[in-house]
Amino acid sequence: MSDVTTTIESLKNDVKKFIEDREWQQFHSPKNLSMALVSEATELMDLFLWCESAASYDELEKRRQDVEDEVADIAFALLCFCNQNKIDLSKALAHKQIEKARKYPIEKCKGKWTKYTEL
Amino acid sequence: MSDVTTTIESLKNDVKKFIEDREWQQFHSPKNLSMALVSEATELMDLFLWCESAASYDELEKRRQDVEDEVADIAFALLCFCNQNKIDLSKALAHKQIEKARKYPIEKCKGKWTKYTEL
Amino acid sequence: MSDVTTTIESLKNDVKKFIEDREWQQFHSPKNLSMALVSEATELMDLFLWCESAASYDELEKRRQDVEDEVADIAFALLCFCNQNKIDLSKALAHKQIEKARKYPIEKCKGKWTKYTEL
Amino acid sequence: MSDVTTTIESLKNDVKKFIEDREWQQFHSPKNLSMALVSEATELMDLFLWCESAASYDELEKRRQDVEDEVADIAFALLCFCNQNKIDLSKALAHKQIEKARKYPIEKCKGKWTKYTEL
Repeated sequence: MSDVTTTIESLKNDVKKFIEDREWQQFHSPKNLSMALVSEATELMDLFLWCESAASYDELEKRRQDVEDEVADIAFALLCFCNQNKIDLSKALAHKQIEKARKYPIEKCKGKWTKYTEL
Repeated sequence: MSDVTTTIESLKNDVKKFIEDREWQQFHSPKNLSMALVSEATELMDLFLWCESAASYDELEKRRQDVEDEVADIAFALLCFCNQNKIDLSKALAHKQIEKARKYPIEKCKGKWTKYTEL
Repeated sequence: MSDVTTTIESLKNDVKKFIEDREWQQFHSPKNLSMALVSEATELMDLFLWCESAASYDELEKRRQDVEDEVADIAFALLCFCNQNKIDLSKALAHKQIEKARKYPIEKCKGKWTKYTEL
Repeated sequence: MSDVTTTIESLKNDVKKFIEDREWQQFHSPKNLSMALVSEATELMDLFLWCESAASYDELEKRRQDVEDEVADIAFALLCFCNQNKIDLSKALAHKQIEKARKYPIEKCKGKWTKYTEL
């Protein structure tokens, strides 16, 4: 198994089975799952709370397994959300990327982190 | 394009090109990207802030496009994080799912949302 | 000690002493403290992650000490932020409340949770 | 009005009146208010998302009014939470600070950001 050959659908199905085996769909309202997503993302962020931005690369290597576990938890919650609400993630990403490209034209934002509203 | 045929790798490549075209890798330290992930997840949560959990399904349908855009933003930030730090998402998910299955054995947690530390 | 007689200033001074005794000001940049605030707020939210909104009152009573500890952690981080950046919290609140009252006139938003942009 | 003379109780009362005038207590379950706290804290964090930790001091000065408004929003939500759930913030802070002092003895953690579990 690797990202090169794994489809989104197959990851979604793994996650779906895990949840259905435990009858957890009943807790997975959009409200609750969006909270879980924030919670998991914050656990990842906690690993880099007090270190400098530049030092966070080293911090990541020191705790790579923890980092990968947190990343997996975020992906898990995100796939639950897509499953529960019939969202095609590839289509949603493709759609949003067009808008992002429009908001952030290459020539205007190259090498800058300015928000599009202030470009 | 759809989740059925799209691989993680191909999504990763789309995201990578978008970032490299804008020379944004320099801002994408683990610390900064983990903050961006929290920020995007919170934007999704904001859509369900004051409604009841049960009512959040209707709320989602009323604003489906907004919801899908926020989901895409989270996925985008997550794939940036994986690209920048050489994380194979499918492997990370598979690894974590084994641990989750151990922490949450079906017979003990079916239909319950109790945390594993209190099961 | 109680909220009836305690001033913001005296809480700020307690927090200030705690931080200076440990020479932690060096880590307390606006960026880092804002992350800490999100992190502490998420710990509070975690206590109510999967329960219904109506049931969260009971959940709070069952874990009142945990809840009060998390509330204290948020207040602690907020007061650190005010100390470090010379913010007068009472003035900031008074100033913001005028704006809030303008955005949410009583007659228009009574009993509704609609955002002011959609009133 | 200033932090030197303002008590927590008087801030709590201002916030209480604002909420009761709008009949918003019905939305202020512990679950919802904890989400609002995360949401407001994230808005503050968003102001420092891509800048370096050291540069965030300047960033704060450039946008001081925005920062103070976000800080006020966090305080507002926190005071709503205390009002709604009868929490004495000064007592909660005093109680937690004793525990924090025990977890982080000055001699062991001076000038270090290590978590107490790893000290």
